[in-house]
Amino acid sequence: MEMKLPGQEGFEASSAPRNIPSGELDSNPDPGTSPSPDGPSDTESKELGVPKDPLLFIQLNELLGWPQALEWRETGRWVLFEEKLEVTAGRWSAPHVPTLALPSLQKLRSLLAEGLVLLDCPAQSLLELVEQVTRVESLSPELRGQLQALLLQRPQHYNQTTGTRPCWGSTHPRKASDNEEAPLRQQCQNPLRQKLPPGAEAGTVLAGELGFLVQPLGAFVRLRDPVVLGSLTEVSLPSRFFCLLLGPRMLGKGYHEMGRAAAVLLSDPQFQWSVRRASNLHDLLAALDAFLEEVTVLPPGRWDPTARIPPPKCLPSQHKRLPSQQREIRGPAVPRLTSAEDRHHHGPHAPSPELQRTGRLFGGLIQDVRRKVPWYPSDFLDALHLQCFSAVLYIYLATVTNAITFGGLLGDATDGAQGVLESFLGTAVAGAAFCLMAGQPLTILSSTGPVLVFERLLFSFSRDYSLDYLPFRLWVGIWVATFCLVLVATEASVLVRYFTRFTEEGFCALISLIFIYDAVGKMLNLTHTYPIQKPGSSAYGCLCQYPGPGGNESQWIRTRPKDRDNIVSMVRKGLSDFSSVLAILLGCGLDAFLGLATPKLMVPREFKPTLPGRGWLVSPFGANPWWWSVAAALPALLLSILIFMDQQITAVILNRVEYRLQKGAGFHLDLFCVAVLMLLTSALGLPWYVSATVISLAHMDSLRRESRACVPGECPNFLGIREQRLTGLVVFILTGASIFLAPVLKFIPMPVLYGIFLYMGVAALSSIQFTKRVKLLLMPAKHQPDLLLLRHVPLTRVHLFTAIQLACLGLLWIIKSTPAAIIFPLMLLGLVGVRKALERVFLPQELLWLDELMPEEERSIPGKGLEPERSFSGSDSEDSELMYQPKAPEINISVN
Amino acid sequence: MEMKLPGQEGFEASSAPRNIPSGELDSNPDPGTSPSPDGPSDTESKELGVPKDPLLFIQLNELLGWPQALEWRETGRWVLFEEKLEVTAGRWSAPHVPTLALPSLQKLRSLLAEGLVLLDCPAQSLLELVEQVTRVESLSPELRGQLQALLLQRPQHYNQTTGTRPCWGSTHPRKASDNEEAPLRQQCQNPLRQKLPPGAEAGTVLAGELGFLVQPLGAFVRLRDPVVLGSLTEVSLPSRFFCLLLGPRMLGKGYHEMGRAAAVLLSDPQFQWSVRRASNLHDLLAALDAFLEEVTVLPPGRWDPTARIPPPKCLPSQHKRLPSQQREIRGPAVPRLTSAEDRHHHGPHAPSPELQRTGRLFGGLIQDVRRKVPWYPSDFLDALHLQCFSAVLYIYLATVTNAITFGGLLGDATDGAQGVLESFLGTAVAGAAFCLMAGQPLTILSSTGPVLVFERLLFSFSRDYSLDYLPFRLWVGIWVATFCLVLVATEASVLVRYFTRFTEEGFCALISLIFIYDAVGKMLNLTHTYPIQKPGSSAYGCLCQYPGPGGNESQWIRTRPKDRDNIVSMVRKGLSDFSSVLAILLGCGLDAFLGLATPKLMVPREFKPTLPGRGWLVSPFGANPWWWSVAAALPALLLSILIFMDQQITAVILNRVEYRLQKGAGFHLDLFCVAVLMLLTSALGLPWYVSATVISLAHMDSLRRESRACVPGECPNFLGIREQRLTGLVVFILTGASIFLAPVLKFIPMPVLYGIFLYMGVAALSSIQFTKRVKLLLMPAKHQPDLLLLRHVPLTRVHLFTAIQLACLGLLWIIKSTPAAIIFPLMLLGLVGVRKALERVFLPQELLWLDELMPEEERSIPGKGLEPERSFSGSDSEDSELMYQPKAPEINISVN
Repeated sequence: MEMKLPGQEGFEASSAPRNIPSGELDSNPDPGTSPSPDGPSDTESKELGVPKDPLLFIQLNELLGWPQALEWRETGRWVLFEEKLEVTAGRWSAPHVPTLALPSLQKLRSLLAEGLVLLDCPAQSLLELVEQVTRVESLSPELRGQLQALLLQRPQHYNQTTGTRPCWGSTHPRKASDNEEAPLRQQCQNPLRQKLPPGAEAGTVLAGELGFLVQPLGAFVRLRDPVVLGSLTEVSLPSRFFCLLLGPRMLGKGYHEMGRAAAVLLSDPQFQWSVRRASNLHDLLAALDAFLEEVTVLPPGRWDPTARIPPPKCLPSQHKRLPSQQREIRGPAVPRLTSAEDRHHHGPHAPSPELQRTGRLFGGLIQDVRRKVPWYPSDFLDALHLQCFSAVLYIYLATVTNAITFGGLLGDATDGAQGVLESFLGTAVAGAAFCLMAGQPLTILSSTGPVLVFERLLFSFSRDYSLDYLPFRLWVGIWVATFCLVLVATEASVLVRYFTRFTEEGFCALISLIFIYDAVGKMLNLTHTYPIQKPGSSAYGCLCQYPGPGGNESQWIRTRPKDRDNIVSMVRKGLSDFSSVLAILLGCGLDAFLGLATPKLMVPREFKPTLPGRGWLVSPFGANPWWWSVAAALPALLLSILIFMDQQITAVILNRVEYRLQKGAGFHLDLFCVAVLMLLTSALGLPWYVSATVISLAHMDSLRRESRACVPGECPNFLGIREQRLTGLVVFILTGASIFLAPVLKFIPMPVLYGIFLYMGVAALSSIQFTKRVKLLLMPAKHQPDLLLLRHVPLTRVHLFTAIQLACLGLLWIIKSTPAAIIFPLMLLGLVGVRKALERVFLPQELLWLDELMPEEERSIPGKGLEPERSFSGSDSEDSELMYQPKAPEINISVN
Repeated sequence: MEMKLPGQEGFEASSAPRNIPSGELDSNPDPGTSPSPDGPSDTESKELGVPKDPLLFIQLNELLGWPQALEWRETGRWVLFEEKLEVTAGRWSAPHVPTLALPSLQKLRSLLAEGLVLLDCPAQSLLELVEQVTRVESLSPELRGQLQALLLQRPQHYNQTTGTRPCWGSTHPRKASDNEEAPLRQQCQNPLRQKLPPGAEAGTVLAGELGFLVQPLGAFVRLRDPVVLGSLTEVSLPSRFFCLLLGPRMLGKGYHEMGRAAAVLLSDPQFQWSVRRASNLHDLLAALDAFLEEVTVLPPGRWDPTARIPPPKCLPSQHKRLPSQQREIRGPAVPRLTSAEDRHHHGPHAPSPELQRTGRLFGGLIQDVRRKVPWYPSDFLDALHLQCFSAVLYIYLATVTNAITFGGLLGDATDGAQGVLESFLGTAVAGAAFCLMAGQPLTILSSTGPVLVFERLLFSFSRDYSLDYLPFRLWVGIWVATFCLVLVATEASVLVRYFTRFTEEGFCALISLIFIYDAVGKMLNLTHTYPIQKPGSSAYGCLCQYPGPGGNESQWIRTRPKDRDNIVSMVRKGLSDFSSVLAILLGCGLDAFLGLATPKLMVPREFKPTLPGRGWLVSPFGANPWWWSVAAALPALLLSILIFMDQQITAVILNRVEYRLQKGAGFHLDLFCVAVLMLLTSALGLPWYVSATVISLAHMDSLRRESRACVPGECPNFLGIREQRLTGLVVFILTGASIFLAPVLKFIPMPVLYGIFLYMGVAALSSIQFTKRVKLLLMPAKHQPDLLLLRHVPLTRVHLFTAIQLACLGLLWIIKSTPAAIIFPLMLLGLVGVRKALERVFLPQELLWLDELMPEEERSIPGKGLEPERSFSGSDSEDSELMYQPKAPEINISVN
């Protein structure tokens, strides 16, 4: 061990060789390859087997009470952010971004430069450490003794478990527990201990004014082997760093601020990285200077230095801060936490193996199967987690609600040819089969709005021509399955790379509007059947038959919990996951309590098809002429396009890279499954099914894997999704079993179900960027939010893009609502064409911000040349700002 | 004019004398007394006749396009905050707090230290300025010519009026307007010009890379006389400062960041102050160093340097930043913008002249009159402002709503002895009289909840003893007026200094709960009279008489706009002022549209007392024995206490120092007026009136005077209230006239009015700190907001205080609801006693945070010793944080 006195900077270099010994807790075998001075969000790198520096807990002990009652007291602590002890309030502050005064950093630098620096100090206890630290020439033996006694004095830690009130001036609150074992017990019971990952080390900064010192005393120690230094730290962690900053009285809060500066320095990942590898004072000061080079400075006149900044949602990327040498070692291939920046540049449409065309017949399908088969056992083993249980409950309720509601709508649309029973049975059979076979087993199948519109059209068409509906429908299904198989065979799914956000959001907006329109329309229809009673109205006679207009009533009451959720969300997110279920129960309960005569869900009492007199198997021709089975190919062609678009847009959304799916997608396999199920459901007279965006996203959301939010102020990191087949399977088995719950379902009033649809529509609509841009149309520029796209695209261009999207949506809506609805699927395909044509109107860099790039555009533009203003105007690099405004996923509805 | 070359720092000191010549726009006659390097929020100091430095607009012009197409382009601008030009988006960013990199400030310092510094440069045009700036030894004549040509080149400003899209790489958007006059026209049309106060000056920073330079060229110029330098700046302001930062190419964005650093420096008030008075390079660098001493530093690992920080609501106080010399000159007597810090230390209960006891009979009243009389003419002249018109409309609607609602409740409480007509008449007469006579004419009189409770008690008492109600009530009124006059004579109002927030909030919570309870109770009562129809219920027969249970219906619909307001408040504050009126109209409209059979407001058709057969004047005895007029003294004593408490607590709230009332309060005069009106209303059988907290606050809120939010990012400053008597007077005259609108009022359903009461109750309850603390009781510590009081008071103590308050409230509620209600006023007085007793439980510094101090406590504690932890633990001075969480006014309901 070397002692460091002023002017001896060069000495250490020769005596302390470059290899840094690793303590028992330090898992770095070789400093050359030890990576990343990142924060403790190390789960990913650990998974990848890359060793990391241990996490550092830093504590500031201040010397207070001079001269009468000298004592060390912990006043601050740092892991990722700063926590300050509110002395009088006796609590730790909320974690916040530390702010420093520049002079305190500079004073610290000069104190360290003239002070004692011990790197790889072999001390094994606090006593040894104190002896080494006080062996300074400037101290007389007497002073040294005094100082050593002082340093060995046990510091006061704020004990979170005691209920007593720490209050200055009154009797000392911790005197009661002054025996020797109490502090150690406190150390072990400290709740902070559980929040720190195993292997964490401690750093302690001791700072304060000591009147009997003539000149300042600074010492920085890196222990060779981290050891627990008694009760020096509030948690019993092995200490690695020790920093002593003492001196004669000075004006202001000099040593307090210097101590904070040292602690903040030690909590900086880059400084930590450097100082763990420093071999002499020069390295230490260089690390400090490197820190100073990178600090952000806020001017005094416009920023209050005492304001506490809450922790940002995402920490800034440490990637760019690595020393160049280190970066080279790591190389570009080392996987890192995907920053929004990376997401942005690679984009969700970067060519993935799933979407590479093989050129062989059914090549994509075969590849999908090959890719998924190895995962199959794990698809069941990975489900063995408590989280999956709650996901099943949640998604089951959503699926049942959907099955009930859709069953009711289907019954209306087909005039009773199908109904709730078919909806339940079909959901259960198709859903379970899909979960067992599909490429993306997290998908929840459902009958979506456009398919319902098509079914309604098909039914009215068959009624117009006096056709037997179900047999005709069977043939449509057969043809659709055939066409879809052709699409699978020709690997048409690779075309989904042309589905950009323009298409996704247009489709999503349309579905949402259909939901809203249907719900409102149904409600208004109810007022005809169940009119609101007016005094003296001519309909007085029928009052006795429909005595209460309660439908509206429960509607208003039911939507209230949603409003309230909006207000206290952040607050009760957990409860809000079940808000819609609670709303249903509340609506049903109120309806039952008030005994309102609302229309209820009509549920069959027996397990038999809704249409009287038919068996489960649909007869292939029924009363229809044979040639209708050929003619069915025409509507089937359109339905195929619809199914393809609906299925694949949803699949694209579900397989976005932001969800970090490990097991890959299966666009071809999914479409194949849909085709097979099409055959099955048509033959049994059940509804048709495709992937349901909203519920599937809710399913994935309920299966998120996140790093535990350990360290104070840290946001949990998204690690991925629990990809497995079991939750879906169980959900659909439960759904099937619910068919026998029919007696319970009859208590559900229809207005409640319409309300759920209204809510789902509004929720989905309000979550997409398109809606934000529509709002921009109505907002004066001054009040517009600081959206990233507004920084890069002129407002008029944003408005133009929005207007085009609105026009497309209007056109789709008109077509859907008129007799031309039959060509609706073609128009949906047209969306992609419109987007393609937009390339002639907008510049690629504008489309990059407003949408995403299509495959050809991506190829035509060199990677970094997309933001030319960087090279031209020298504007700030704004990639990090992306972290605060993640560009995707835009469609993220967590409430079903 | 002196030229400054490296190494000549001392030269300037002798040649440039200390007196700074003032340009024609510079209004500082003597730099020695020129004050405050404050922000531009100078309205107050201007009002006080203190001259100020002009506001500075700073613009950064960057040299771009090297080497082919060199041009100057404005890329940033600063007044209080930074605005960055989003080049591709073609818009100015939102104003934000500038952030700098520390190295750029250090590079700027060394460039200036070695560069040219011209202080008091006499140049009269850009040409002269450029000639002087380029007269540097290191430049060859050829280079000098090139540089001069470059500097004279017209810079490109982003023109907000052009609709063309500035887009790099395409044709230049401003080429079209390249003639000579266009830029000057643009300068004058610039909308920013109108946002800057008269006398504003400009500073320009020119920065960029210039390949043909061998060494960096830095120049800093302060012009002796500010002149408009052609089209150098985007607005045609006289330029005072000019900073040139050019040099050979370097890595990174060196000159861009250095230019920003120079601009941020110039936008700092303290730096501006110093550099306006600097006489040599040494002073300039000293000012820069002083800036560096005060900057806030954010560590790189935890803070993203490119994140944009929105402007804080309040700028930090510049008071502490003044150099000591300057502070002495200003002296403590110079009035400044009252910071929250001052508020906190002086407190709302600092002895004000209104609350000094004179010791003479009626001495307080006489002083009040003496103080108010001189303002009387201005009380009408000050009302000549458009704002007063909208205030009248708003408060009229609130008053009418209140009169209607209270009239209805009063009719119920007195079984028709009084009613809506009395309520209107009384409100009009008493309100108008009060506005003409009172000490605080902004007060809106109203009958409040506790008085109504008392009236209800009095009525049931008189019914129990078969008394003639109104004559008995007249005697109660006579006695109350007598007692109140005694209170006025004895100057009892000075005791309001004992009404701390504990009392105010307890009272406010009670009133709010009464509102809520009454509203809900009334609604539930309605379901008995107008039952909700159930199918098959036995009450089927009466269906034909009450055919629709619509009361509930309109209730739910009516409260919805409130919820919505909560969500989009910040957004549509203006509309929300009228939300309750809109809600009433919506409720009435829906009721009328659906033709619901709701109970309507019973409105008399004729202008005569509600009680049949009585004249307007109440007979002094009626059918009552004479001795009841003496016995009435006992309830009158209690009512007097109630009136005194109710009136004075409200008066204390209205006269809080935060409202910056200029004309003073009149506690004695107000009570005197209430006593006189008590007599009048009792004699006429009208309701009793005291000041209404909620509506009066809304009245004051609608009369706020604010500085215009001129400069980008600046929040408007609260300047005071338009104190006058006219708005109140007009409101009550209109209210009186509304009596003849009775035919219209009959369309208002009672449930709508109950809903308004429910809303007022909830709004008032949710605005007080007490409610926040009750929420804390239910919240785990981790999720608690960063309230200032939680930083200073232990959580258990906060909970104890809240629990005591809750217990008091519960006790008051029980007393109010039981036959013991008659002693309710005494218990209200008891609140003050409880608060006094709390001094034995809580430490003064705890009470300072939880409440306010009572007069004795204030005296017993030396001013600064209240926060002892500052001297002990060396914690940060947190006064500035108070700005972000103003402690008062806690009760601030702006929606009636």
